[in-house]
Amino acid sequence: MNKYTLDTDTVSYDEKINALIIIDQTRLPNNTEFLTLTGDKDIWDAIYHLKVRGAPAIGVAAAIGLYVVMSGAGVTEKEKFLKLLHEEKEYLNSSRPTAVNLSWALNRMEERALKLKDMPVSDILAALKDEALDIKAEDTDMCRRIGENALTLLKKGDGLLTHCNAGQLATSKYGTATSAMYLGYEREYDFKIYCDETRPLLQGARLTAYELKSAGLDVTLLCDNMVSSIMRQGKINAVLVGCDRVAGNGDVANKIGTSVVATVAARYGIPFYVCAPSSTIDPATRTGDDIVIEQRPGEEVTRMWYEKPMAPENINVYNPAFDITDNELISAIITERGIFRAPYDFK
Amino acid sequence: MNKYTLDTDTVSYDEKINALIIIDQTRLPNNTEFLTLTGDKDIWDAIYHLKVRGAPAIGVAAAIGLYVVMSGAGVTEKEKFLKLLHEEKEYLNSSRPTAVNLSWALNRMEERALKLKDMPVSDILAALKDEALDIKAEDTDMCRRIGENALTLLKKGDGLLTHCNAGQLATSKYGTATSAMYLGYEREYDFKIYCDETRPLLQGARLTAYELKSAGLDVTLLCDNMVSSIMRQGKINAVLVGCDRVAGNGDVANKIGTSVVATVAARYGIPFYVCAPSSTIDPATRTGDDIVIEQRPGEEVTRMWYEKPMAPENINVYNPAFDITDNELISAIITERGIFRAPYDFK
Repeated sequence: MNKYTLDTDTVSYDEKINALIIIDQTRLPNNTEFLTLTGDKDIWDAIYHLKVRGAPAIGVAAAIGLYVVMSGAGVTEKEKFLKLLHEEKEYLNSSRPTAVNLSWALNRMEERALKLKDMPVSDILAALKDEALDIKAEDTDMCRRIGENALTLLKKGDGLLTHCNAGQLATSKYGTATSAMYLGYEREYDFKIYCDETRPLLQGARLTAYELKSAGLDVTLLCDNMVSSIMRQGKINAVLVGCDRVAGNGDVANKIGTSVVATVAARYGIPFYVCAPSSTIDPATRTGDDIVIEQRPGEEVTRMWYEKPMAPENINVYNPAFDITDNELISAIITERGIFRAPYDFK
Repeated sequence: MNKYTLDTDTVSYDEKINALIIIDQTRLPNNTEFLTLTGDKDIWDAIYHLKVRGAPAIGVAAAIGLYVVMSGAGVTEKEKFLKLLHEEKEYLNSSRPTAVNLSWALNRMEERALKLKDMPVSDILAALKDEALDIKAEDTDMCRRIGENALTLLKKGDGLLTHCNAGQLATSKYGTATSAMYLGYEREYDFKIYCDETRPLLQGARLTAYELKSAGLDVTLLCDNMVSSIMRQGKINAVLVGCDRVAGNGDVANKIGTSVVATVAARYGIPFYVCAPSSTIDPATRTGDDIVIEQRPGEEVTRMWYEKPMAPENINVYNPAFDITDNELISAIITERGIFRAPYDFK
C-alpha cells in the first residue's frame, strides 16, 4: 500500500492482523508509507514523533491502539486486565501531554471498560473494540456534518483558499476546513482550491497540498504572502480554515498567519469561514486576548528542516505558533451543530 | 576582509590594484566573502550570477567594472580604445538585460567618453574613473536623502517593519527602505526593527536581517505570515518598504507580499511608507493594473534551494514575483526629492 486517495483512512484498524494502521505523516509529501503498529512502544512513538498528528486523528489512533495492545496482551484474569488497561492508557497518554483529544479518547475507553467490570474479559474487549471504532466513526461523522454545513455556503466553480492543514490527515476522514472541498469534489462542484504553504513548518505545502492532490482535487500551492495577489485578481470566493480554539466572543486562535488571510479577505469582501468541531468552542475563554500563544524556537524559521541556515547566526526570531483572528473578520463559524454568525451565542 | 559592518561598501573601487570589489551576495548569510574582480568575464559573471544584485548596486558595479576593464586594457590608440569601450559596454550590458540601472550606468559611461573623444586616451580614462565614482556617490547621496526624508516621519524608539531587501546590499550605501534605519542608528534613535523573511527566495532572512544585524542594529526576523500577530501587539509604529515601480496614480509594484503587509498595517492604523528613488516613478504607467507581473517557476516554492522537495511532485504553484499595493494603502511615497502623499502629483 503506497497510494493515498480520497478513500484512504488516515487511521484505521486491521481486523485480520489486529493492528493499528496509520499513514506516516513525517515521510510526506515525498514518501507515502503506511505503518502497521501492534506494540505499545511503537504506538507511543508514532504519536510522540508526529507520525500521526492532528488532534482528532491522535485521539482515534490512541483508542484503536489501546484496543490493539489489550487484545494482544493475552490477559484473561479480570483484575490484571483492568490494571494493565489503566497502565497502558497512562503510558499512551504520556506521548503528547497537551493534546486534549488524546486523553479524552483514552479516558473514554477506560470508562467503557470499567462500566463492564462485572463481565468477562472477552466481553470487555469486544466493547473496547466497539468504543474505538465508535470514536472513529463519530469523528468521521462530525467532519462530514461540518462539510455539509459549509457546503451550503459555497457554489459550483468557487475558488477556495485554505491555510495550514485542517484536512483529512488531521482527522479520521474529510478533515474540517477541507470537508466541504471533498464533499464538493464527490458532487462535481469543480472547486479550484488554493493552499497556503504555511510557514514555518509548511503544513500547507507538505500535508494539505499532498492530501488534496492525491485525492484528485484541483489544488494550487502558494506562499502565505501571495494571498493579496490572488485575491486582488478575484480568484478566491471563500476562505475555509480550521481552528484550535474559539473564544466566547468568537475570536479564533489558529495557526500563525490565519489572521493575515482574514484581514486581506475582509479587504476584498471575501467570506472567511472557520470550520471546527463544537468541542473547540470554549466560552470560558472570554476573548482572543485571554488565549496564551505558544512561542516556538527560532530555528524553525532560520533553518529549513535543520539542513542549511537561511538567516544570519544568532539572529533574533519572532516565532509564535498561533495568532488571534478578531471576530469581526470572521463571516461564520461552522461546526457539526450548525453555522454560527456574530453576535456569537454558542449555547 | 571577512566582516560586514555599517561602513562596508557593497560595491567599491580599489585604486591600488585597479579592481572592482564586491561582497558576494550568493554566499550570504553564512559566508561573508569579498570578490576582487578585474577581468570583463569575471565582472559579467558576478552580475549574471547575482553575486551583486539590487538595481542601483548593479549599475555602480557595472560602471566601476567598465572603468577597471578599460584602464587595464593597455589600449592607447584612441579609435581602438573607443571601439573596445563600446564592445565591453555591450558585453557587460548583456549580463542582465532587463535591469534598467545597468544599461543606464553603462550608457552614461560611454557618453562621457564620447564627449571627450578629441582628448588623449589618458584623459578619457581619468574622466571614466570620475564618472564611475560619481555614479556611486550620487547613489549614496540619493539613498541618504531618502533616509533623511523618511526619518522626519519617525520617532525615537519606534518599531519598524520592512519586507524583502531594499537595503544597503542593493545600493552603494544606506539602501532605500533601510536608509532611515541606518541614519537613525547613527543618531541613537533606538529603533526596534522587524524584518519579514520574504518567501519564496528569503531576501529578508538572507540579506536584510544579515546586513542590519552585521551593522549592529536591533533586528528581529519573522515569517511573512506573522505580521498581523506582531502588529496586533502594537509593536510596529511604521512600515518601510522599497519598490520596483510607482504608477502615475501612486499604486506600487514591489516584491510579492508587500500588499499583504500594507493591508494588515492599514487595519491597525500603522503608517505604510514606500521609499524609492524618484526614477522609480513612472507616470506613463497609469495604475497598478497596467503593470505586468512576472510569474516565476514553481520550483522556487516547492524546493528550498533545490535540495529537498517540500510539496508533492507536480503540484500546481502560483508564484508571482511582485504584487500591486493600491495607493489608498500607502501613507506616503518617500523619494530623494521629498515626501509625496495622495492625491499623487509627481511633477
